[in-house]
Amino acid sequence: MKVAILGIDGYIGWALAMRLAEHGKNVIGVDSFYTRKRVKEVGSDSLLPITTLDERLKTFEERSGKKIEFAGGDVNDPDFMLEFVKKERPDAYVHLAEQRSAPYSMIGLTQARETLIQNMGGTINLVYAMKEYTPDAHLLKLGTMGEYGTPNIDIPEGFFEIDYKGRHDRLPFPKSAGSWYHWSKVHDTNNLMFANKVWGLKITDVMQGVVYGTRTKEITKYGIPTRFDFDEVWGTALNRFCTQASIGIPLTAYGKGEQRRGYLSLEDSITCLELGLDKPPKTGEYRVYNQFDEHYSINELTALVAERGEKIFGRHIDVSHIDNPRVEQDQHYYNPEHMKLKELGYKPSRNLYEDIDEILADVNDNRERALKYRDCIMPKTVWRKSISK
Amino acid sequence: MKVAILGIDGYIGWALAMRLAEHGKNVIGVDSFYTRKRVKEVGSDSLLPITTLDERLKTFEERSGKKIEFAGGDVNDPDFMLEFVKKERPDAYVHLAEQRSAPYSMIGLTQARETLIQNMGGTINLVYAMKEYTPDAHLLKLGTMGEYGTPNIDIPEGFFEIDYKGRHDRLPFPKSAGSWYHWSKVHDTNNLMFANKVWGLKITDVMQGVVYGTRTKEITKYGIPTRFDFDEVWGTALNRFCTQASIGIPLTAYGKGEQRRGYLSLEDSITCLELGLDKPPKTGEYRVYNQFDEHYSINELTALVAERGEKIFGRHIDVSHIDNPRVEQDQHYYNPEHMKLKELGYKPSRNLYEDIDEILADVNDNRERALKYRDCIMPKTVWRKSISK
Repeated sequence: MKVAILGIDGYIGWALAMRLAEHGKNVIGVDSFYTRKRVKEVGSDSLLPITTLDERLKTFEERSGKKIEFAGGDVNDPDFMLEFVKKERPDAYVHLAEQRSAPYSMIGLTQARETLIQNMGGTINLVYAMKEYTPDAHLLKLGTMGEYGTPNIDIPEGFFEIDYKGRHDRLPFPKSAGSWYHWSKVHDTNNLMFANKVWGLKITDVMQGVVYGTRTKEITKYGIPTRFDFDEVWGTALNRFCTQASIGIPLTAYGKGEQRRGYLSLEDSITCLELGLDKPPKTGEYRVYNQFDEHYSINELTALVAERGEKIFGRHIDVSHIDNPRVEQDQHYYNPEHMKLKELGYKPSRNLYEDIDEILADVNDNRERALKYRDCIMPKTVWRKSISK
Repeated sequence: MKVAILGIDGYIGWALAMRLAEHGKNVIGVDSFYTRKRVKEVGSDSLLPITTLDERLKTFEERSGKKIEFAGGDVNDPDFMLEFVKKERPDAYVHLAEQRSAPYSMIGLTQARETLIQNMGGTINLVYAMKEYTPDAHLLKLGTMGEYGTPNIDIPEGFFEIDYKGRHDRLPFPKSAGSWYHWSKVHDTNNLMFANKVWGLKITDVMQGVVYGTRTKEITKYGIPTRFDFDEVWGTALNRFCTQASIGIPLTAYGKGEQRRGYLSLEDSITCLELGLDKPPKTGEYRVYNQFDEHYSINELTALVAERGEKIFGRHIDVSHIDNPRVEQDQHYYNPEHMKLKELGYKPSRNLYEDIDEILADVNDNRERALKYRDCIMPKTVWRKSISK
């Protein structure tokens, strides 16, 4: 199976590329190094040091004996995408090549436009290229659980059966995203449903929870880390807490800390993605998974990091609640379904309570880098103050 | 009240501008003349001859004694929009400045990208500019009934109350659009809901049905027509049928002709839009109307045009069913609610059965132009064959 990984240089992309190559798949990656560039612009960097993609590919080949191909380019460039697909004709695509930061999308108009236009444009280019040159290929597209927002009812996997005023239908679940980034993923989802409807493209739309962790089997085996972002723009809350614990500053929970989200480990994320590739949808099918195993509130995360951090680092760790820069419900119902991957045979192998110590250890090994970039930790991007520039 | 009409040179824009100016509102229009340019590109033109906007504005001022201001520019240019809003500070905006053709959006990748990016980009620019300079102004944005698609249940006005697995919530009604154009309107709707949520902007999102007709009170009074498109890309089905009846060729229904949509007259459309401006939402409110009065199937439209055309033109009129170039349900349930405008005091003043004769008369007065552009009538754009260029 020839798999194109769009966004191979990213956190999930790199881990997934090694996994698929390790398992004998023919992998070709695409990247424009957008994330590296944008992270540098906010004065930050990956906490775990990563070499250039060329060097990582070379090291991986030396250590594993397996070659991963690469094509540099921007998925939002129609000519590049059409040429790439025409030339390479992959059997499957994993599309991770999107602007993936909610705070970045909320900095101002420039970033809002960039996020909405690039993410939508790349996905549109891809479906047109697929329809033209690889109409039977499988597109596995990364969405986010954040597309759903936090409704007061259970969240199904993409579609739900409803009765309304005496009649019945199966409809897409209405989305309520919380940033331009999250909305860009909703727009993609809508566009993918339509590409499936008019051209019958085979699509898996993955509503993924927050991914955590620094290690996968291949990262450990070959000693080639994937990126780990912790700054206010590009990092996750958990990554921020681990970094704060390591350098001895209070963990900063946004607002009341009762915001609850779905999570899964990086190891399990790439296991799920490979499973999706190995068990593709039927011809003409558009399917949606909710891809997460656990859910935690922010307060549960800070409590866990504080407890384990105190144990490992041997000092007291404070938790402070700061004004929430986002516009989100502080307290809400949260019960998303997630059965479809299990029905395909997926079994979770990790959980955060088991992984937290190794994350803290890997972060602490890079304490000096965290101190160097510590000015990037506190929130500067405020949803209500998104600027018109 | 100072009202900015974005897209003043269009079918509804021009009619609305005259109405608002006639009623003493201070009107400033914006246009990039995109529609004129794109209609020319497909080898067509407005069937009713229209002069340049400058000339129309001048004629209107001479005949009515009222001045309408104009600022030429592209709403998708962030600098233009920010400057315009900063300088003019309107009390209200009517946003009609979007690519409005479903077939155009389905020609190929270039047109799909243009539609999705321009429409979304213009709306995003506008909400950022409003938030910055006129946070209390009212945005009246034109969406389309086509955002809803044709679900098997009643269509509410924007939001619905549902019970699901024993719990209750009020959620946006899930959309199922039928072209990139229609999806661009859904994306706008989603982005507007979010702009309202984070910045409290006062927004009316109008889900409008298909608008028909050639005359409004001011068009008749001042003798300055608005555009009327009939070609396969820019015209509506009803406009096509009237034109075909006039030049003596069969009316071409797409598919079985049981597709049913909401309609309202141009006169009533601008009455509704003015009502929306006069009775704005509350501070911080996002509201949705379904703006239509009647619904007709394609077969009902062809039967009506054939019957009245035979009477007026004194010759037999054929109806032929051709392969549907679109991807849409041929037969479906259709019951959208439309009470909110009536609750605001709206009373429909026209219906298609009363208006059809004057439309046919106005079209027939321009028979020579229809014959000149007759090659543009039959469908060339086929949804399933949208090209990757």
